[in-house]
Amino acid sequence: MILYDCDIAPNPRRARMFIAEKGLNIEKIEVDIIGGENLTESFLSINPRGLLPVLELDDGTKIDEVMAICRYLEEIYPENPLLGSTPLEKARVEGYQRKMEFDGMIAVSEAFRNNAENERFSYRSLPGRDGTSAIEGLVERGLNTLDNFYIWLERYLTENEFVAGNNFTMADITAFVAVDFSKWVKRKIPKENTKTLEWYNKVSLRGSAKA
Amino acid sequence: MILYDCDIAPNPRRARMFIAEKGLNIEKIEVDIIGGENLTESFLSINPRGLLPVLELDDGTKIDEVMAICRYLEEIYPENPLLGSTPLEKARVEGYQRKMEFDGMIAVSEAFRNNAENERFSYRSLPGRDGTSAIEGLVERGLNTLDNFYIWLERYLTENEFVAGNNFTMADITAFVAVDFSKWVKRKIPKENTKTLEWYNKVSLRGSAKA
Repeated sequence: MILYDCDIAPNPRRARMFIAEKGLNIEKIEVDIIGGENLTESFLSINPRGLLPVLELDDGTKIDEVMAICRYLEEIYPENPLLGSTPLEKARVEGYQRKMEFDGMIAVSEAFRNNAENERFSYRSLPGRDGTSAIEGLVERGLNTLDNFYIWLERYLTENEFVAGNNFTMADITAFVAVDFSKWVKRKIPKENTKTLEWYNKVSLRGSAKA
Repeated sequence: MILYDCDIAPNPRRARMFIAEKGLNIEKIEVDIIGGENLTESFLSINPRGLLPVLELDDGTKIDEVMAICRYLEEIYPENPLLGSTPLEKARVEGYQRKMEFDGMIAVSEAFRNNAENERFSYRSLPGRDGTSAIEGLVERGLNTLDNFYIWLERYLTENEFVAGNNFTMADITAFVAVDFSKWVKRKIPKENTKTLEWYNKVSLRGSAKA
Protein backbone atom coordinates (compact mmCIF):
# COMPACT_ATOMS: atom_id res chain seq x y z
CA MET A 1 0.00 0.00 0.00
CA ILE A 2 1.00 3.63 -0.58
CA LEU A 3 -0.28 6.67 1.31
CA TYR A 4 -0.31 9.90 -0.71
CA ASP A 5 0.53 12.27 2.07
CA CYS A 6 1.35 15.89 2.87
CA ASP A 7 3.49 16.48 5.91
CA ILE A 8 2.02 19.81 7.02
CA ALA A 9 -1.65 19.12 6.24
CA PRO A 10 -4.01 18.15 9.08
CA ASN A 11 -6.16 15.56 7.28
CA PRO A 12 -3.19 13.46 6.13
CA ARG A 13 -1.91 13.73 9.71
CA ARG A 14 -5.12 12.10 10.98
CA ALA A 15 -4.41 9.14 8.65
CA ARG A 16 -0.76 8.99 9.73
CA MET A 17 -1.74 8.93 13.42
CA PHE A 18 -4.26 6.17 12.76
CA ILE A 19 -1.62 4.13 10.89
CA ALA A 20 0.92 4.68 13.69
CA GLU A 21 -1.59 3.63 16.37
CA LYS A 22 -2.21 0.43 14.41
CA GLY A 23 1.53 -0.19 14.30
CA LEU A 24 1.50 -0.35 10.49
CA ASN A 25 4.31 0.58 8.18
CA ILE A 26 2.93 2.03 4.95
CA GLU A 27 5.03 3.66 2.23
CA LYS A 28 4.33 7.39 1.91
CA ILE A 29 4.57 9.67 -1.11
CA GLU A 30 4.73 13.38 -0.27
CA VAL A 31 2.48 15.70 -2.33
CA ASP A 32 3.23 19.43 -2.13
CA ILE A 33 -0.13 21.08 -1.46
CA ILE A 34 1.41 24.52 -0.91
CA GLY A 35 2.99 24.33 -4.38
CA GLY A 36 -0.33 23.15 -5.86
CA GLU A 37 0.93 19.68 -6.79
CA ASN A 38 -2.45 18.23 -5.71
CA LEU A 39 -4.14 20.13 -8.54
CA THR A 40 -1.82 18.92 -11.32
CA GLU A 41 -3.04 16.46 -13.97
CA SER A 42 -0.67 13.90 -12.53
CA PHE A 43 -2.26 13.96 -9.07
CA LEU A 44 -5.80 14.42 -10.39
CA SER A 45 -5.37 11.05 -12.10
CA ILE A 46 -4.89 9.58 -8.61
CA ASN A 47 -7.70 11.57 -6.97
CA PRO A 48 -9.89 13.57 -9.36
CA ARG A 49 -10.96 15.77 -6.44
CA GLY A 50 -7.39 16.86 -5.75
CA LEU A 51 -7.61 16.04 -2.05
CA LEU A 52 -5.29 14.26 0.36
CA PRO A 53 -4.77 11.74 1.85
CA VAL A 54 -5.27 8.88 -0.64
CA LEU A 55 -4.49 5.23 0.09
CA GLU A 56 -3.48 3.15 -2.92
CA LEU A 57 -3.88 -0.60 -2.48
CA ASP A 58 -1.49 -3.13 -4.02
CA ASP A 59 -3.93 -3.79 -6.90
CA GLY A 60 -4.05 -0.06 -7.71
CA THR A 61 -7.43 0.64 -6.09
CA LYS A 62 -7.50 4.12 -4.58
CA ILE A 63 -9.36 5.10 -1.42
CA ASP A 64 -9.74 8.80 -0.73
CA GLU A 65 -11.33 10.55 2.29
CA VAL A 66 -9.48 10.06 5.55
CA MET A 67 -12.34 8.28 7.32
CA ALA A 68 -12.75 5.84 4.42
CA ILE A 69 -9.03 5.04 4.67
CA CYS A 70 -9.33 4.50 8.42
CA ARG A 71 -12.41 2.32 7.96
CA TYR A 72 -10.55 0.12 5.48
CA LEU A 73 -7.51 -0.25 7.72
CA GLU A 74 -9.71 -0.96 10.78
CA GLU A 75 -11.43 -3.74 8.84
CA ILE A 76 -8.28 -5.45 7.60
CA TYR A 77 -6.33 -4.87 10.83
CA PRO A 78 -9.01 -5.20 13.52
CA GLU A 79 -6.56 -5.51 16.43
CA ASN A 80 -6.29 -2.47 18.66
CA PRO A 81 -9.63 -1.04 17.47
CA LEU A 82 -9.81 2.72 16.96
CA LEU A 83 -13.39 2.87 15.67
CA GLY A 84 -15.00 1.05 18.62
CA SER A 85 -15.64 -2.59 19.57
CA THR A 86 -19.28 -2.97 20.60
CA PRO A 87 -22.20 -1.58 18.54
CA LEU A 88 -22.65 1.26 21.05
CA GLU A 89 -18.92 2.09 21.08
CA LYS A 90 -18.86 2.12 17.29
CA ALA A 91 -21.81 4.51 17.27
CA ARG A 92 -20.15 6.72 19.89
CA VAL A 93 -16.87 6.90 17.98
CA GLU A 94 -18.78 7.74 14.80
CA GLY A 95 -20.72 10.51 16.49
CA TYR A 96 -17.89 12.07 18.51
CA GLN A 97 -15.43 11.82 15.64
CA ARG A 98 -17.85 13.80 13.51
CA LYS A 99 -18.36 16.41 16.22
CA MET A 100 -14.61 16.90 16.55
CA GLU A 101 -14.34 17.14 12.79
CA PHE A 102 -17.14 19.65 12.27
CA ASP A 103 -16.48 21.75 15.39
CA GLY A 104 -12.72 21.56 15.18
CA MET A 105 -11.16 20.62 11.84
CA ILE A 106 -13.73 22.27 9.58
CA ALA A 107 -14.04 25.38 11.76
CA VAL A 108 -10.28 26.00 11.63
CA SER A 109 -10.24 25.30 7.91
CA GLU A 110 -13.02 27.86 7.31
CA ALA A 111 -11.37 30.49 9.52
CA PHE A 112 -7.98 29.93 7.90
CA ARG A 113 -8.88 29.57 4.23
CA ASN A 114 -11.25 32.53 4.21
CA ASN A 115 -8.83 34.94 5.85
CA ALA A 116 -7.62 37.32 3.14
CA GLU A 117 -4.23 37.46 4.88
CA ASN A 118 -3.60 33.87 3.84
CA GLU A 119 -3.05 34.71 0.19
CA ARG A 120 -2.19 31.22 -0.94
CA PHE A 121 -5.64 30.03 0.05
CA SER A 122 -7.81 33.10 -0.44
CA TYR A 123 -8.91 31.92 -3.87
CA ARG A 124 -9.92 28.59 -2.42
CA SER A 125 -12.63 28.88 0.20
CA LEU A 126 -13.09 25.12 -0.01
CA PRO A 127 -10.21 22.66 -0.43
CA GLY A 128 -9.52 20.74 -3.62
CA ARG A 129 -10.40 21.34 -7.21
CA ASP A 130 -13.86 22.79 -6.70
CA GLY A 131 -12.78 25.68 -4.46
CA THR A 132 -14.42 29.10 -4.63
CA SER A 133 -13.41 32.61 -3.53
CA ALA A 134 -12.85 33.47 0.10
CA ILE A 135 -15.88 34.60 2.14
CA GLU A 136 -14.94 37.06 4.86
CA GLY A 137 -17.81 36.21 7.24
CA LEU A 138 -16.57 32.65 7.55
CA VAL A 139 -13.55 33.76 9.54
CA GLU A 140 -15.75 34.92 12.42
CA ARG A 141 -18.13 31.96 12.09
CA GLY A 142 -15.19 29.55 12.07
CA LEU A 143 -13.67 31.12 15.17
CA ASN A 144 -17.03 31.05 16.98
CA THR A 145 -17.44 27.38 16.17
CA LEU A 146 -13.89 26.78 17.35
CA ASP A 147 -14.68 28.48 20.69
CA ASN A 148 -17.58 26.05 21.00
CA PHE A 149 -15.28 23.16 20.05
CA TYR A 150 -13.17 23.91 23.12
CA ILE A 151 -16.25 24.17 25.34
CA TRP A 152 -17.67 20.83 24.15
CA LEU A 153 -14.30 19.10 24.25
CA GLU A 154 -13.79 20.08 27.91
CA ARG A 155 -17.27 18.77 28.65
CA TYR A 156 -16.62 15.41 26.97
CA LEU A 157 -13.29 15.03 28.76
CA THR A 158 -14.95 15.81 32.09
CA GLU A 159 -17.41 12.97 31.45
CA ASN A 160 -14.83 10.44 30.22
CA GLU A 161 -11.09 9.89 30.08
CA PHE A 162 -11.08 10.06 26.28
CA VAL A 163 -13.36 11.92 23.85
CA ALA A 164 -15.74 9.05 23.04
CA GLY A 165 -15.42 7.05 26.28
CA ASN A 166 -12.80 5.14 28.23
CA ASN A 167 -10.64 4.17 25.27
CA PHE A 168 -8.40 6.15 22.94
CA THR A 169 -10.14 6.22 19.53
CA MET A 170 -10.30 8.07 16.23
CA ALA A 171 -12.32 10.76 18.01
CA ASP A 172 -9.17 11.58 20.02
CA ILE A 173 -7.03 11.63 16.89
CA THR A 174 -9.35 14.10 15.19
CA ALA A 175 -9.64 16.27 18.31
CA PHE A 176 -5.87 16.25 18.88
CA VAL A 177 -5.10 17.19 15.28
CA ALA A 178 -7.78 19.91 15.45
CA VAL A 179 -6.17 21.40 18.58
CA ASP A 180 -2.81 21.63 16.82
CA PHE A 181 -4.49 22.90 13.64
CA SER A 182 -6.18 25.66 15.65
CA LYS A 183 -2.73 27.25 16.15
CA TRP A 184 -2.97 28.21 12.45
CA VAL A 185 -5.71 30.68 13.47
CA LYS A 186 -3.91 31.67 16.68
CA ARG A 187 -6.16 29.69 19.03
CA LYS A 188 -5.15 27.23 21.73
CA ILE A 189 -6.67 25.28 24.61
CA PRO A 190 -8.06 27.87 27.10
CA LYS A 191 -5.98 27.71 30.30
CA GLU A 192 -9.06 27.04 32.48
CA ASN A 193 -9.87 23.87 30.46
CA THR A 194 -7.86 21.63 32.77
CA LYS A 195 -9.30 18.32 31.58
CA THR A 196 -8.46 19.16 27.98
CA LEU A 197 -4.91 20.24 28.88
CA GLU A 198 -4.38 16.99 30.82
CA TRP A 199 -5.72 14.93 27.89
CA TYR A 200 -3.61 16.87 25.38
CA ASN A 201 -0.43 16.23 27.36
CA LYS A 202 -1.28 12.54 27.66
CA VAL A 203 -1.96 12.14 23.93
CA SER A 204 1.23 14.09 23.11
CA LEU A 205 3.23 11.32 24.78
CA ARG A 206 1.90 8.64 22.43
CA GLY A 207 4.26 7.67 19.65
CA SER A 208 1.56 8.43 17.09
CA ALA A 209 1.56 12.12 18.06
CA LYS A 210 4.79 12.54 16.09
CA ALA A 211 3.43 10.78 13.00
CA MET B 1 -36.14 2.33 20.91
CA ILE B 2 -37.47 5.81 20.09
CA LEU B 3 -36.44 8.03 17.18
CA TYR B 4 -36.75 11.76 17.84
CA ASP B 5 -37.77 12.85 14.41
CA CYS B 6 -38.90 15.81 12.31
CA ASP B 7 -41.04 15.00 9.32
CA ILE B 8 -39.85 17.81 7.02
CA ALA B 9 -36.15 17.79 7.93
CA PRO B 10 -33.66 16.05 5.62
CA ASN B 11 -31.31 14.52 8.21
CA PRO B 12 -34.09 12.75 10.12
CA ARG B 13 -35.31 11.54 6.71
CA ARG B 14 -31.95 9.85 6.10
CA ALA B 15 -32.42 7.94 9.37
CA ARG B 16 -36.03 7.05 8.49
CA MET B 17 -34.98 5.71 5.07
CA PHE B 18 -32.23 3.63 6.69
CA ILE B 19 -34.70 2.21 9.22
CA ALA B 20 -37.23 1.43 6.47
CA GLU B 21 -34.58 -0.30 4.32
CA LYS B 22 -33.70 -2.45 7.34
CA GLY B 23 -37.38 -3.33 7.75
CA LEU B 24 -37.39 -2.06 11.33
CA ASN B 25 -40.33 -0.59 13.18
CA ILE B 26 -39.13 2.08 15.60
CA GLU B 27 -41.43 4.41 17.55
CA LYS B 28 -41.09 8.05 16.44
CA ILE B 29 -41.61 11.26 18.39
CA GLU B 30 -42.07 14.36 16.23
CA VAL B 31 -40.11 17.47 17.23
CA ASP B 32 -41.19 20.76 15.66
CA ILE B 33 -37.97 22.35 14.37
CA ILE B 34 -39.83 25.19 12.60
CA GLY B 35 -41.44 26.16 15.91
CA GLY B 36 -38.05 25.93 17.67
CA GLU B 37 -38.99 22.96 19.85
CA ASN B 38 -35.49 21.53 19.32
CA LEU B 39 -34.03 24.51 21.20
CA THR B 40 -36.28 24.21 24.28
CA GLU B 41 -34.89 23.04 27.64
CA SER B 42 -36.99 19.93 27.29
CA PHE B 43 -35.34 18.84 24.03
CA LEU B 44 -31.89 20.08 25.02
CA SER B 45 -32.05 17.56 27.89
CA ILE B 46 -32.32 14.86 25.20
CA ASN B 47 -29.66 16.34 22.89
CA PRO B 48 -27.72 19.28 24.32
CA ARG B 49 -26.81 20.33 20.77
CA GLY B 50 -30.44 20.75 19.77
CA LEU B 51 -30.08 18.61 16.66
CA LEU B 52 -32.19 15.85 15.14
CA PRO B 53 -32.44 12.93 14.72
CA VAL B 54 -31.71 11.26 18.07
CA LEU B 55 -32.14 7.54 18.77
CA GLU B 56 -33.01 6.66 22.36
CA LEU B 57 -32.26 3.07 23.35
CA ASP B 58 -34.43 1.10 25.77
CA ASP B 59 -32.00 1.80 28.64
CA GLY B 60 -32.25 5.54 28.01
CA THR B 61 -28.91 5.89 26.16
CA LYS B 62 -29.13 8.55 23.46
CA ILE B 63 -27.31 8.45 20.14
CA ASP B 64 -27.26 11.63 18.10
CA GLU B 65 -25.79 12.26 14.63
CA VAL B 66 -27.53 10.41 11.82
CA MET B 67 -24.48 8.38 10.79
CA ALA B 68 -23.90 7.24 14.37
CA ILE B 69 -27.52 6.07 14.53
CA CYS B 70 -27.12 4.19 11.25
CA ARG B 71 -23.83 2.65 12.42
CA TYR B 72 -25.54 1.38 15.59
CA LEU B 73 -28.48 -0.09 13.69
CA GLU B 74 -26.18 -1.70 11.09
CA GLU B 75 -24.24 -3.37 13.91
CA ILE B 76 -27.24 -4.78 15.75
CA TYR B 77 -29.18 -5.64 12.57
CA PRO B 78 -26.42 -6.69 10.15
CA GLU B 79 -28.77 -8.30 7.61
CA ASN B 80 -29.29 -6.35 4.42
CA PRO B 81 -26.12 -4.27 4.93
CA LEU B 82 -26.30 -0.60 3.99
CA LEU B 83 -22.78 0.35 5.07
CA GLY B 84 -20.95 -2.28 3.00
CA SER B 85 -19.97 -5.93 3.47
CA THR B 86 -16.29 -6.34 2.58
CA PRO B 87 -13.53 -4.02 3.90
CA LEU B 88 -13.32 -2.28 0.51
CA GLU B 89 -17.10 -1.88 0.25
CA LYS B 90 -17.23 -0.44 3.76
CA ALA B 91 -14.52 2.05 2.82
CA ARG B 92 -16.32 2.95 -0.41
CA VAL B 93 -19.64 3.53 1.35
CA GLU B 94 -17.88 5.66 3.98
CA GLY B 95 -16.18 7.78 1.31
CA TYR B 96 -19.10 8.19 -1.09
CA GLN B 97 -21.58 8.79 1.70
CA ARG B 98 -19.39 11.65 2.90
CA LYS B 99 -19.08 13.10 -0.60
CA MET B 100 -22.85 13.07 -1.02
CA GLU B 101 -23.21 14.67 2.39
CA PHE B 102 -20.67 17.45 1.87
CA ASP B 103 -21.45 18.17 -1.80
CA GLY B 104 -25.19 17.71 -1.46
CA MET B 105 -26.71 17.96 2.02
CA ILE B 106 -24.36 20.56 3.45
CA ALA B 107 -24.29 22.64 0.26
CA VAL B 108 -28.09 22.91 0.20
CA SER B 109 -28.13 23.65 3.91
CA GLU B 110 -25.63 26.51 3.46
CA ALA B 111 -27.46 27.95 0.45
CA PHE B 112 -30.83 27.72 2.22
CA ARG B 113 -29.95 28.86 5.74
CA ASN B 114 -27.87 31.82 4.61
CA ASN B 115 -30.47 33.20 2.22
CA ALA B 116 -31.93 36.31 3.87
CA GLU B 117 -35.30 35.46 2.28
CA ASN B 118 -35.60 32.48 4.60
CA GLU B 119 -36.29 34.57 7.70
CA ARG B 120 -36.86 31.70 10.06
CA PHE B 121 -33.29 30.55 9.52
CA SER B 122 -31.43 33.77 8.80
CA TYR B 123 -30.25 34.08 12.40
CA ARG B 124 -28.94 30.54 12.27
CA SER B 125 -26.23 30.08 9.69
CA LEU B 126 -25.44 26.72 11.27
CA PRO B 127 -28.09 24.34 12.63
CA GLY B 128 -28.65 23.72 16.33
CA ARG B 129 -27.87 25.70 19.42
CA ASP B 130 -24.56 27.18 18.34
CA GLY B 131 -25.89 28.91 15.22
CA THR B 132 -24.58 32.26 14.03
CA SER B 133 -25.86 34.99 11.71
CA ALA B 134 -26.44 34.37 8.03
CA ILE B 135 -23.48 34.93 5.66
CA GLU B 136 -24.61 36.09 2.24
CA GLY B 137 -21.62 34.68 0.31
CA LEU B 138 -22.53 31.16 1.38
CA VAL B 139 -25.61 31.16 -0.83
CA GLU B 140 -23.47 31.34 -3.97
CA ARG B 141 -20.82 28.96 -2.61
CA GLY B 142 -23.52 26.47 -1.63
CA LEU B 143 -25.13 26.62 -5.06
CA ASN B 144 -21.75 26.20 -6.78
CA THR B 145 -21.01 23.15 -4.66
CA LEU B 146 -24.46 21.82 -5.46
CA ASP B 147 -23.79 22.20 -9.20
CA ASN B 148 -20.65 20.11 -8.65
CA PHE B 149 -22.70 17.59 -6.63
CA TYR B 150 -24.81 16.94 -9.72
CA ILE B 151 -21.73 16.62 -11.93
CA TRP B 152 -20.04 14.12 -9.60
CA LEU B 153 -23.23 12.18 -8.98
CA GLU B 154 -23.76 11.67 -12.73
CA ARG B 155 -20.15 10.50 -13.00
CA TYR B 156 -20.52 7.97 -10.17
CA LEU B 157 -23.78 6.64 -11.62
CA THR B 158 -22.12 6.27 -15.02
CA GLU B 159 -19.41 4.13 -13.43
CA ASN B 160 -21.77 2.02 -11.29
CA GLU B 161 -25.46 1.20 -10.88
CA PHE B 162 -25.54 2.79 -7.42
CA VAL B 163 -23.50 5.62 -5.92
CA ALA B 164 -20.88 3.49 -4.13
CA GLY B 165 -20.94 0.42 -6.38
CA ASN B 166 -23.34 -2.32 -7.42
CA ASN B 167 -25.46 -2.32 -4.27
CA PHE B 168 -27.91 0.19 -2.81
CA THR B 169 -26.25 1.69 0.29
CA MET B 170 -26.32 4.64 2.66
CA ALA B 171 -24.53 6.65 -0.04
CA ASP B 172 -27.69 6.36 -2.16
CA ILE B 173 -29.89 7.37 0.77
CA THR B 174 -27.84 10.51 1.38
CA ALA B 175 -27.70 11.38 -2.33
CA PHE B 176 -31.44 10.79 -2.79
CA VAL B 177 -32.36 12.94 0.22
CA ALA B 178 -29.95 15.62 -1.01
CA VAL B 179 -31.62 15.68 -4.44
CA ASP B 180 -35.03 16.24 -2.84
CA PHE B 181 -33.54 18.76 -0.40
CA SER B 182 -32.08 20.71 -3.34
CA LYS B 183 -35.64 21.66 -4.32
CA TRP B 184 -35.55 23.96 -1.26
CA VAL B 185 -33.05 26.10 -3.17
CA LYS B 186 -34.87 25.65 -6.50
CA ARG B 187 -32.41 23.15 -7.97
CA LYS B 188 -33.14 19.78 -9.54
CA ILE B 189 -31.38 17.05 -11.52
CA PRO B 190 -30.19 18.63 -14.80
CA LYS B 191 -32.19 17.09 -17.66
CA GLU B 192 -29.03 15.95 -19.49
CA ASN B 193 -27.96 13.86 -16.44
CA THR B 194 -29.69 10.73 -17.72
CA LYS B 195 -27.99 8.26 -15.39
CA THR B 196 -28.96 10.32 -12.36
CA LEU B 197 -32.58 10.63 -13.55
CA GLU B 198 -32.78 6.86 -14.11
CA TRP B 199 -31.30 6.19 -10.66
CA TYR B 200 -33.63 8.72 -9.01
CA ASN B 201 -36.70 7.08 -10.55
CA LYS B 202 -35.52 3.65 -9.46
CA VAL B 203 -34.86 4.74 -5.87
CA SER B 204 -38.23 6.57 -5.79
CA LEU B 205 -39.94 3.19 -6.26
CA ARG B 206 -38.40 1.72 -3.10
CA GLY B 207 -40.73 1.65 -0.10
CA SER B 208 -38.15 3.57 1.92
CA ALA B 209 -38.47 6.61 -0.35
CA LYS B 210 -41.77 7.44 1.38
CA ALA B 211 -40.31 7.10 4.88
